[in-house]
Amino acid sequence: MADITPVLERADANLPQSLERLFDLVRIQSISTDPAFRAECRKAAEWLAAELKALGFEASVRDTPGHPMVVAHHAAEKASAPHLLFYGHYDVQPVDPLNLWDAPPFEPGIKELEPGRQVITGRGTSDDKGQLMTFVEAVRAYKETHGVLPCRITILFEGEEESGSPSLKPFLEANAAELKADYALICDTGMWDRETPAISAGLRGLVGEEIIVKAADRDLHSGLFGGAAANPIHILADILAGLHDETGRVTLDNFYDGVEETPSEIKASWETLGRTAEKFLGEVGLSIPSGEKGRSVLELTWARPTAEINGITGGYTGEGFKTVIAAQASAKVSFRLVGNQDPAKVRESFRAYVRTKIPADCSVEFHPHGASPAIHLPYDSALLTTAKAALSAEWPKPAIVIGMGGSIPIVGDFQKMLGMESLLVGFALADDRIHSPNEKYELTSFHKGIRSWIRILDALAG
Amino acid sequence: MADITPVLERADANLPQSLERLFDLVRIQSISTDPAFRAECRKAAEWLAAELKALGFEASVRDTPGHPMVVAHHAAEKASAPHLLFYGHYDVQPVDPLNLWDAPPFEPGIKELEPGRQVITGRGTSDDKGQLMTFVEAVRAYKETHGVLPCRITILFEGEEESGSPSLKPFLEANAAELKADYALICDTGMWDRETPAISAGLRGLVGEEIIVKAADRDLHSGLFGGAAANPIHILADILAGLHDETGRVTLDNFYDGVEETPSEIKASWETLGRTAEKFLGEVGLSIPSGEKGRSVLELTWARPTAEINGITGGYTGEGFKTVIAAQASAKVSFRLVGNQDPAKVRESFRAYVRTKIPADCSVEFHPHGASPAIHLPYDSALLTTAKAALSAEWPKPAIVIGMGGSIPIVGDFQKMLGMESLLVGFALADDRIHSPNEKYELTSFHKGIRSWIRILDALAG
Repeated sequence: MADITPVLERADANLPQSLERLFDLVRIQSISTDPAFRAECRKAAEWLAAELKALGFEASVRDTPGHPMVVAHHAAEKASAPHLLFYGHYDVQPVDPLNLWDAPPFEPGIKELEPGRQVITGRGTSDDKGQLMTFVEAVRAYKETHGVLPCRITILFEGEEESGSPSLKPFLEANAAELKADYALICDTGMWDRETPAISAGLRGLVGEEIIVKAADRDLHSGLFGGAAANPIHILADILAGLHDETGRVTLDNFYDGVEETPSEIKASWETLGRTAEKFLGEVGLSIPSGEKGRSVLELTWARPTAEINGITGGYTGEGFKTVIAAQASAKVSFRLVGNQDPAKVRESFRAYVRTKIPADCSVEFHPHGASPAIHLPYDSALLTTAKAALSAEWPKPAIVIGMGGSIPIVGDFQKMLGMESLLVGFALADDRIHSPNEKYELTSFHKGIRSWIRILDALAG
Repeated sequence: MADITPVLERADANLPQSLERLFDLVRIQSISTDPAFRAECRKAAEWLAAELKALGFEASVRDTPGHPMVVAHHAAEKASAPHLLFYGHYDVQPVDPLNLWDAPPFEPGIKELEPGRQVITGRGTSDDKGQLMTFVEAVRAYKETHGVLPCRITILFEGEEESGSPSLKPFLEANAAELKADYALICDTGMWDRETPAISAGLRGLVGEEIIVKAADRDLHSGLFGGAAANPIHILADILAGLHDETGRVTLDNFYDGVEETPSEIKASWETLGRTAEKFLGEVGLSIPSGEKGRSVLELTWARPTAEINGITGGYTGEGFKTVIAAQASAKVSFRLVGNQDPAKVRESFRAYVRTKIPADCSVEFHPHGASPAIHLPYDSALLTTAKAALSAEWPKPAIVIGMGGSIPIVGDFQKMLGMESLLVGFALADDRIHSPNEKYELTSFHKGIRSWIRILDALAG
């Protein structure tokens, strides 16, 4: 381990320029789910490759059937240093409903939430452009200070994370030799709170499915046909309402296969974190846990599977009223998985259940949207222990190891396809409004995030 | 009764020009539910007033807080002739989804469906522009032939029928003396089949209600919050799925108050019409009646109340997938009423039911969209008997008296506010796709509709 004080000072001095660079990246409207923004996704990839080249990386934009990847390589000062693969994603979520944004989503800025608390605003500032730039700026500070890097670094940025990463696995497979490293670093997770950094050691899996219920071959007038013709919205409501029983459990056959009860000592450690339902839900205007009865919010979001409806549409949804019986209605449904739940079996069980609810003269279409099992990382690895100490040195409070409600399928891919253990460190906060209007990233997350990576790189090099 | 042969011949000779005039009216995009088409609604009103003036009516466009009314008056040849108020509406339904139209909805044309069967295509050709123009063209043929009219005629065209007619009652109230006639003629209904004209003697009432379920104060990431935070789409699905029991009955408290069983002789007469579920639903690609079990489709659509979901929306509904828990979700729900069901009580019962389903940390908003009770017209009045004979003279098969699933609230308003009995005659067909893409009106409906009104006017004058 070298003296990193000058590197940290360099990062501090660079901060205004680091922010300008992040703003440039946020201005690129790289919404991956919407084909209209295809060119913007490429632009983001090219912007990143150019930045990395300027830092001395051998960087390139690699085409895929979807949005391109950015791959970059940089050697370490010493050949004995570990090889790290850093992963992030440059694509962002759609921005609708646009009218709920206080400022245009792709015009980033700094806003003072309260005295001494500044945030960076704009789509992608937290998920994931701000996060990936903490690493790029850490590398920059190191390089500018010492002219070398402490570890061998490969960077992989993808542009389809928000669309289920369809091109990722084939890309990893085709480029395994180039991408295989000693460890993967993934920066797409959050802090415990504004003072406490966190390393995520458990992630829920995800199965996404869109269903389209089809009834009559055209929209019908509800006066002429109402009471006699099947209404696909009724059918859909019945399907969705039946997904949970009165205790909040998911009703699908064999859904809980592979789900184990969380050990009581783990539950006890979570109790001490003080995340009550009132506090956790209070931040978003709610207060009552809605899922399985008798479980804490940490257990519900970290250790229990769910069925959620992410979107629904059917019939007339414009202004005013239209007395129509729709020809079809659709919903996007997702399942968060834990333990050893099998994504393929969950999807099949859902489809079987849906089919039982479709009248004989109606039909249903299924469209899969991604599938990944849950992941558990070892709590006591050297990687995790080293990173924990480095983070604890930077932040006011020591780092903690937590579960995670979200899904980062790439962790499983790295494990299975490249045999790499991942370290999940990120600086987002629960109130960052990722995927929502008015997304933000704490200025402190960005600044101390850069400093955190400097410390982690240095510690891993040693 | 005069010799109407020359009038009918005149109508036949006028047909090409009558069609051109209808096309002109259909080209005006008078969608009343969408504020973007406000100017088009006025344009339709002005077009109609100008046509009526040219026919010798004293016609004017009258402002309302919403879209304007057209009112026109014309004296009868003899002072002893009855005074008739003809009602129609110039506004049309929205046209989405636009991609399902074979031709642009506001570019009318003639299409040959099969040899000898031509239809007029375009939004509003059947509902209600084509229908109201049958009357205007009947009047034209009479006037052009005889220089006079057989009855005193007042015409009232409104532009808000598809939006619940908010301005109609106040307008009737403010202009009662001017609008009061001996009978009202309403042309917004259908034929029994292509050969059999029909007079509608029963109409279901309608209560419309939009509900907005609100949960968190922002959209949430389903990974971070899924399993713990209330999902408004789940709550909405649960509300909507609970509206019916397993026998298809509506579950709301006291919903069936005022609903009487249809007399068995009436049911028996409906049986003879041969409208089986297979035939009726087969026309729209369905086969199984979906409402209350054990009742015929005629009973379900003419004599039973319903609860229908006309639209639903919440969360992410664009392309791809977004793992979001929405802040809110909404549905447009309507109830068709029969017998003496009280619209206000039905609405209140629905709201009370919905409130029981809203968790304590969530909320619901209600937006009413129209309310009208069911209507029954006497089966044996002179007006109905006279019209029945006139229609039977024109069409291949005798006219029949039927029930109606739809709601025409103005029938109740005419009855209560102006003390007028209404005659409901129209020439639409069940497969006209009103409110749907590819709306059409049979050329025969238009042509023989014009001739039918000539016969009815003449018969009523006598």
